[in-house]
Amino acid sequence: MTERIGIFNAGPAVLPEEVLLEAQKDLFNYKGCGQSVMEMSHRSPVFQGIIDDAMARLKDLMGLGDDYDILFLLGGASTQFLMIPMNLCPDDKTCNYVNTGTWATKALKEAKKLGKKMHIAASSEDKAFTYIPKEMDITDDAAYLHITTNNTIRGTEYHWIPDVNIPLIADVSSNFLSKPMDFKKFDMIYGGAQKNIGPAGMAFVVISKKIQEKLPGNVPTMLDYKTHISKGSMFNTPPCWTIYIVGLVAKWIQDNGGLVGIEKINKEKAGYIYNAMDRTDFYSGPVVFEDRSLMNIPFRLPTEELEKKFIAEAAQENFIGLKGHRSVGGCRASVYNSLPLKWAQKLGHFMDEFAKNNG
Amino acid sequence: MTERIGIFNAGPAVLPEEVLLEAQKDLFNYKGCGQSVMEMSHRSPVFQGIIDDAMARLKDLMGLGDDYDILFLLGGASTQFLMIPMNLCPDDKTCNYVNTGTWATKALKEAKKLGKKMHIAASSEDKAFTYIPKEMDITDDAAYLHITTNNTIRGTEYHWIPDVNIPLIADVSSNFLSKPMDFKKFDMIYGGAQKNIGPAGMAFVVISKKIQEKLPGNVPTMLDYKTHISKGSMFNTPPCWTIYIVGLVAKWIQDNGGLVGIEKINKEKAGYIYNAMDRTDFYSGPVVFEDRSLMNIPFRLPTEELEKKFIAEAAQENFIGLKGHRSVGGCRASVYNSLPLKWAQKLGHFMDEFAKNNG
Repeated sequence: MTERIGIFNAGPAVLPEEVLLEAQKDLFNYKGCGQSVMEMSHRSPVFQGIIDDAMARLKDLMGLGDDYDILFLLGGASTQFLMIPMNLCPDDKTCNYVNTGTWATKALKEAKKLGKKMHIAASSEDKAFTYIPKEMDITDDAAYLHITTNNTIRGTEYHWIPDVNIPLIADVSSNFLSKPMDFKKFDMIYGGAQKNIGPAGMAFVVISKKIQEKLPGNVPTMLDYKTHISKGSMFNTPPCWTIYIVGLVAKWIQDNGGLVGIEKINKEKAGYIYNAMDRTDFYSGPVVFEDRSLMNIPFRLPTEELEKKFIAEAAQENFIGLKGHRSVGGCRASVYNSLPLKWAQKLGHFMDEFAKNNG
Repeated sequence: MTERIGIFNAGPAVLPEEVLLEAQKDLFNYKGCGQSVMEMSHRSPVFQGIIDDAMARLKDLMGLGDDYDILFLLGGASTQFLMIPMNLCPDDKTCNYVNTGTWATKALKEAKKLGKKMHIAASSEDKAFTYIPKEMDITDDAAYLHITTNNTIRGTEYHWIPDVNIPLIADVSSNFLSKPMDFKKFDMIYGGAQKNIGPAGMAFVVISKKIQEKLPGNVPTMLDYKTHISKGSMFNTPPCWTIYIVGLVAKWIQDNGGLVGIEKINKEKAGYIYNAMDRTDFYSGPVVFEDRSLMNIPFRLPTEELEKKFIAEAAQENFIGLKGHRSVGGCRASVYNSLPLKWAQKLGHFMDEFAKNNG
């Protein structure tokens, strides 16, 4: 088999090798049906089976039943920044956001751009988004509270779910299905598929029947959740291939112990890197200890020159994707579900060696 | 090699076998770079090469230069129905539409839903959309004229381009790159990828620099063409795999004689089916002769029972996708670019035999 490299990309991100090999085997002729999944009519029974299977597996992993609908939508999570306030914040209410950095900031700015009353219930901007705010100040007329469960760029993660008596909405793009979570506490979660559950090109939305009662009637067709709920995500042609891969990834998670099993491995993987970081003063992590992300691990070296050297030498050892986001600099290792354990282990070892040789 | 079937789907549609085989070969490890295209960072040089290549090939096929931008957007053509009036019809102007059926109807309804002044410049609704209107009545304050160059459901196609002195916008979803066209006459064309140029999950937009000057500043971020133009379709994560396949399909068209070569083959393919239809009174085509589509060929049989029998027997011979759209009934053969010639020939023969045995 051809040699794979260590893919630490923040997204699009690594996929399970088993999933890639199965997709490759079936690409030309899906299970002997004479056509590729990329060619199938979305109205055909064979594709209906694929989408039903993917949705059922995701619901099973989340432990959710018929009181939630799953939508596979085009537009990426960025389009959700717009659809959420448009659909779920009436003009006489205020949408509340916790600002934990870049993506949360984009989400709340879009609500404001739409002309909605928007309130920042909590923010960690005072300390460069290096922690998750524990206190919130929610308005009495709140339409919903919006949080971002993991910040890909800053490397912070919610390890708890806010207890609120208003609808709770979360962007879970970068830690979806990485650990057990009480999904029933949310009225809506959403994210881009391209980090933990599939290739780029699709947003998933999990929306409770309860919050669906609040949907208005005057929203443009493609931006209206009702359009997609009523047609089972097939109002227009869905991204069939992406949905197929998401189904394979969900099956792979189920086969690897579900969310309990995945969390165990994720902790071990992140451990290799955090331990290498904590063993020496050579590396420093900006995030407060208790809010460290299991998915995205940013770290700094003593100088920018050493960071460049680190990334260059890592590339020679076939580690890619280790450059920090351009807005913050430094280094970052994204260790999503699908990253093989051995690559996290190898990176931890590489970090130890690099510190020894350059410290 | 595993046996392929005859895919006459209206969309998602057949893809070239050569493209599928190449994608299959490279799926696990793209050109030895150690990762799948589905895993690549969209910010990486290797993916930048893939998207640049796809855009350059499309521009080459259309004969367009730097005075046009190509965008690869999420949301499908249906989202364009909304973005076009939102971006290109100011409140003091009227958007003009030619109504040639289903998709055109959806496009103009969305403009109306947005509260824009909308005018139907021509319509073939009087005769069940079985022809392309030749006369138009365009308002003096027209923001643009919108046409649909091919109607997938009704099987009508523009074989000419309206000469107007206002911006001309066209939904070209179902006949894009199927024949030479004077693309410079359009200020914007767009479509879903899933018919002639790739798998489902992406809209392409070709937009002139000239019309870009008219773009306003108050549109939600993801619905604003300027957002995507300024970032080369990478404001958010693009559908990398779909873009990759589109590039392969564009190369396949170039390798097969470009648009001149493709049109020649398309005429021959459609000919097999139209000839089988015209040879006998057993079949009837609803569309007026001069507006017949080279891509989608609807036809009726003497009774609905015979239509069911036709579709069932065709399925036994491995022809799929021959059922007419549920809104119109009957039969339909979609013979897009990628349908191998032999399958069109086989279907023509099958139609002859079926007419003989059941006439």
